[in-house]
Amino acid sequence: MIITIKKSAPKQEVEKLIADLEKHGVQVTHVVGETHDVLGLVGDTAKLDEKRIMANVAVRNVTRIAAPYKLANRLFHPEDSVIDVAGIKVGGQEKIVVIGGPCSVEGAEQIVSIAQAVKEAGAVMLRGGAYKPRTSPYAFQGLQTEGILDLVEARRKTGLPIVSELMSSDKIEEFDKYVDLIQIGARNMQNFELLKSLGKTQKPILLKRGLANTIEEWIMSAEYIMAAGNPNVILCERGIRTFEKYTRNTLDLSVIPIIKERTHLPIIIDPSHATGDYRYVEAMSLAAIAAGADGLIIEVHNNPECAWSDGGQSLKPDKFARLVEKCRSIAHVVGREL
Amino acid sequence: MIITIKKSAPKQEVEKLIADLEKHGVQVTHVVGETHDVLGLVGDTAKLDEKRIMANVAVRNVTRIAAPYKLANRLFHPEDSVIDVAGIKVGGQEKIVVIGGPCSVEGAEQIVSIAQAVKEAGAVMLRGGAYKPRTSPYAFQGLQTEGILDLVEARRKTGLPIVSELMSSDKIEEFDKYVDLIQIGARNMQNFELLKSLGKTQKPILLKRGLANTIEEWIMSAEYIMAAGNPNVILCERGIRTFEKYTRNTLDLSVIPIIKERTHLPIIIDPSHATGDYRYVEAMSLAAIAAGADGLIIEVHNNPECAWSDGGQSLKPDKFARLVEKCRSIAHVVGREL
Amino acid sequence: MIITIKKSAPKQEVEKLIADLEKHGVQVTHVVGETHDVLGLVGDTAKLDEKRIMANVAVRNVTRIAAPYKLANRLFHPEDSVIDVAGIKVGGQEKIVVIGGPCSVEGAEQIVSIAQAVKEAGAVMLRGGAYKPRTSPYAFQGLQTEGILDLVEARRKTGLPIVSELMSSDKIEEFDKYVDLIQIGARNMQNFELLKSLGKTQKPILLKRGLANTIEEWIMSAEYIMAAGNPNVILCERGIRTFEKYTRNTLDLSVIPIIKERTHLPIIIDPSHATGDYRYVEAMSLAAIAAGADGLIIEVHNNPECAWSDGGQSLKPDKFARLVEKCRSIAHVVGREL
Amino acid sequence: MIITIKKSAPKQEVEKLIADLEKHGVQVTHVVGETHDVLGLVGDTAKLDEKRIMANVAVRNVTRIAAPYKLANRLFHPEDSVIDVAGIKVGGQEKIVVIGGPCSVEGAEQIVSIAQAVKEAGAVMLRGGAYKPRTSPYAFQGLQTEGILDLVEARRKTGLPIVSELMSSDKIEEFDKYVDLIQIGARNMQNFELLKSLGKTQKPILLKRGLANTIEEWIMSAEYIMAAGNPNVILCERGIRTFEKYTRNTLDLSVIPIIKERTHLPIIIDPSHATGDYRYVEAMSLAAIAAGADGLIIEVHNNPECAWSDGGQSLKPDKFARLVEKCRSIAHVVGREL
Repeated sequence: MIITIKKSAPKQEVEKLIADLEKHGVQVTHVVGETHDVLGLVGDTAKLDEKRIMANVAVRNVTRIAAPYKLANRLFHPEDSVIDVAGIKVGGQEKIVVIGGPCSVEGAEQIVSIAQAVKEAGAVMLRGGAYKPRTSPYAFQGLQTEGILDLVEARRKTGLPIVSELMSSDKIEEFDKYVDLIQIGARNMQNFELLKSLGKTQKPILLKRGLANTIEEWIMSAEYIMAAGNPNVILCERGIRTFEKYTRNTLDLSVIPIIKERTHLPIIIDPSHATGDYRYVEAMSLAAIAAGADGLIIEVHNNPECAWSDGGQSLKPDKFARLVEKCRSIAHVVGREL
Repeated sequence: MIITIKKSAPKQEVEKLIADLEKHGVQVTHVVGETHDVLGLVGDTAKLDEKRIMANVAVRNVTRIAAPYKLANRLFHPEDSVIDVAGIKVGGQEKIVVIGGPCSVEGAEQIVSIAQAVKEAGAVMLRGGAYKPRTSPYAFQGLQTEGILDLVEARRKTGLPIVSELMSSDKIEEFDKYVDLIQIGARNMQNFELLKSLGKTQKPILLKRGLANTIEEWIMSAEYIMAAGNPNVILCERGIRTFEKYTRNTLDLSVIPIIKERTHLPIIIDPSHATGDYRYVEAMSLAAIAAGADGLIIEVHNNPECAWSDGGQSLKPDKFARLVEKCRSIAHVVGREL
Repeated sequence: MIITIKKSAPKQEVEKLIADLEKHGVQVTHVVGETHDVLGLVGDTAKLDEKRIMANVAVRNVTRIAAPYKLANRLFHPEDSVIDVAGIKVGGQEKIVVIGGPCSVEGAEQIVSIAQAVKEAGAVMLRGGAYKPRTSPYAFQGLQTEGILDLVEARRKTGLPIVSELMSSDKIEEFDKYVDLIQIGARNMQNFELLKSLGKTQKPILLKRGLANTIEEWIMSAEYIMAAGNPNVILCERGIRTFEKYTRNTLDLSVIPIIKERTHLPIIIDPSHATGDYRYVEAMSLAAIAAGADGLIIEVHNNPECAWSDGGQSLKPDKFARLVEKCRSIAHVVGREL
Repeated sequence: MIITIKKSAPKQEVEKLIADLEKHGVQVTHVVGETHDVLGLVGDTAKLDEKRIMANVAVRNVTRIAAPYKLANRLFHPEDSVIDVAGIKVGGQEKIVVIGGPCSVEGAEQIVSIAQAVKEAGAVMLRGGAYKPRTSPYAFQGLQTEGILDLVEARRKTGLPIVSELMSSDKIEEFDKYVDLIQIGARNMQNFELLKSLGKTQKPILLKRGLANTIEEWIMSAEYIMAAGNPNVILCERGIRTFEKYTRNTLDLSVIPIIKERTHLPIIIDPSHATGDYRYVEAMSLAAIAAGADGLIIEVHNNPECAWSDGGQSLKPDKFARLVEKCRSIAHVVGREL
């Protein structure tokens, strides 16, 4: 951590600050300059609060150099983490996983039929929303527990592990009992109470990046879950919000090499929510695999025109099957199986 | 709502779509053009789901014209809503309210002393965080229930109603019992489960705008609370996330005339979190009052250098007192009291 | 185009507006609704100015449905445009092009040596900046004409066509004489005077997307060049500005399928400027090819530590050669040569 | 400037880097840490190129602490600059200036009539576009030289100095001869060739902030003009591009205290282009004055419905007159005249 000190700061103020910092166990080097001085801090600066230091009138600026995360940091955990989702391994050099399914579960018949279709097309997990975060209180909010049980039925019929979104702590028991991979949506990425409560389970968590969150904040949210006792976190990029209007969100594929460099966690891409348009899903899926993603999560619906939510971004099963086939060829080029 | 139809769409597909729309009770006018057709829908289109319509292969584009909110909409509720917070009226032509206090409650002594200082300076409510949303799991998370009780003590001593942030539904009873104005933070603006649970209380809600949320989404979150049975919503702008680095967030003051035009709800500005720098708080406060804000919520600390969180953006009581004085003069110019 | 009319608008105002619109040769359908009326316009609405219509007090909202571009629009030009750059074909089903070279030309020896290295690695064009857009007036501004002549020397030695950035209209003759592909940088994407002057040449133009420009605005800038008489436009995505701090810009690869759907122009990706970090260039290059890009433009330097600008994002020639090899394999999977 | 060094960097690499830095005349302090070392640089670091240092494999990160601008920096020029525009003083404790006029000059009669109206309402300068930057090549591009001469006619009739936008270097002579305050538009803020050419004149420059430019980049563009020999720069905020859709841009009023703190240049606000909607112009104007702006530039048209461009954001003269009156009262509260 680097602290810039105003030239006008009284000497005793600076000395007091240095003494205070040293009390926190860090080593401080004082560099005297012409227009300002600089304090260089080394040691465990993760415990220091930039904002509190910044409030000191002698201080002009504070810059953190070491990453604020530890458990997720590849520096302290060099090997890839491989997360086990009901027997399916995700991350490292394991097979790339493809997760398919509808935005919303609409009933047992629908979800079983889509589950069979995505399995046949090559998906190894089934997604389906039972609790739906909708911008409007008047929009369909999901079948809730009934939807979860429909997913369980689809798993029984196909053997596919199931992925579904959890929106509040009070349903953790239900999800722990029935769901194989618990999704935390973009809007809840910084719902810290929910993140903390995920330590109560050892179920793998699929943590989506928030719409306006930096990669660092996203890793910090993974750190929350890990610090609460659950190391089984898979990250999922689903687009960020920008000024562009031709896509719903801007898919940021550069997260793939960055997450792999800075953390040891698997990274999965969601091209359906990112683009919001089924016509762009295939191109973005191939790009994600080429860039090194550990998996894809894609919306598939047998009748997108009638989908209860997000129909415009869903693929029909035959298009999805072709997409998986192409992704497999790309995977081979980058040295992975799918 | 306007639906653009592809020229290549088979006639029976379009007829089926029109019939389907009419079944939902809207009136459809079909305009035939050279490169595409257009369907004009009038009636109660709020119930229609754009995305489902968009998934129809015949459809090229869907544009919503009527606002998707009703309870918050000034069109259906022309008079200003005035929200009563423990006897303090907010909104309409009522006095502009100034809320002051520390980012975090750090103990009874601290909060009582700041409460007295902000009251003397002209604040009519006291703010203080007991449950703190922090990016890092290693940062101070707030005194929690103890902090709430310290606020209650400060209210007893000063008579100031208290404002504090609620982060999860399981604390609603505690907040309903002790807190006068329940703050929902930016990161929870689209925590829909939390929004729904706020219908269980009639306590006023201070709903902050999310970091990357449009004004429309923000109003929709107010609509969630109102639709759940609690009409007492006050909106609070606290800056949005942009590429700018000299401020923590970009304070969007244009929300003031927009919220007043589109809704009947009061709007309050938080210049402290928006700028993240105490040096810019006064200028932004005066600007907010000049633009027509119904109130301000400002961080005040008697010792910002030692504040447990966000010290860099806190004002000392004497600066805060001067700020209130200047705001009062601006208020008179725009025809309001403070 | 759709115009929403206020219910409160006097009848004669609306009739006047309709008459005025019909005078511009468009056909207007008037849809009467409960809370507002709607005018549906069909015909050549490209000539209408939304803003002028919006200024009418009777009007609540104006929505454009047809795209505002014509010459670049695939609707009116269904086949892919293939642009010829000194014999190298770009776009359509032609070979994917790889352009390599340093950010800045630093002298004849340097550029010749890099040209030979990138040619050997598989590049088919040489890039090099002679006129440099630098944020600081104190930073190196490029070798200018001398740099252009150094590029010409490198072309003579290697046969590689040369790409360089033009920053002002007064150098068009120089570029027309010496350069094979004229690059227009992100900061000049809406330098409309420069765009208009590009009609004076028939040289191909590499038009970079502006840092905060929508895809539609970018296509409109291509339209400017085409409308001025030069149809030889190649688009180049180089990242947009967002709140993310781990990359210099956010590379938006979704432009690839979108540009191919909406226009007939070739699209090239610049992963070096987008990420600003050589470590992420390979992953983003592979992703771009997988998504269907027609080419890549990549910074290569034989000694990045000593590069006069942007060293941190340059690849060394051996890494670049490996990257080209991998891109070739990806290209085959998506049915292209490289 | 702070350079973080990788722990794995060979000792001689680090020594070479330090020697190289010292050759550039800066003083380097080497701080040894556990996970990385830090080099603290003091002295004239403005000449160092971060990117070139970043390209060194031993280097992990580079952080600039001193501002990269000098001529615009208040640190080296503590008193406010007051810019003289044909006798009207702008900045410091001078009267707040209000500039009014149409987006585009549409003819002598129109501009003279508007000039008289804005003068009567209290404006002290007249704005009017003769060269118009339009997204579409098919939109009205301005009356050009004819428009400039119409402005001159309006000045002759009213005495108001005239403000108009310059879009290319080849018109500098025309502007130098006829225009009193040369506006550089948002899209040309980083048209560095144009900026450099502004040193050829001593005419005051109104430099608008780019749509996606940081405050620092904006100051650097002022620095370009100043370094080229013209110290007469006035900055103008006109909104930045964000994800918000209810306004055309997001007006960032926090620039007012920031520009005043970091530079000695005057700052003017353009609420018309920022909001894009005449209904929000008054509120934003009052806010700007309250926050300490040195002036406003506002679009006024006698017949907005017929304006050739941007009619939707223009005020009619009577509304403008009321706005000026209210701004005057706000100005008095903050200790300024208008």
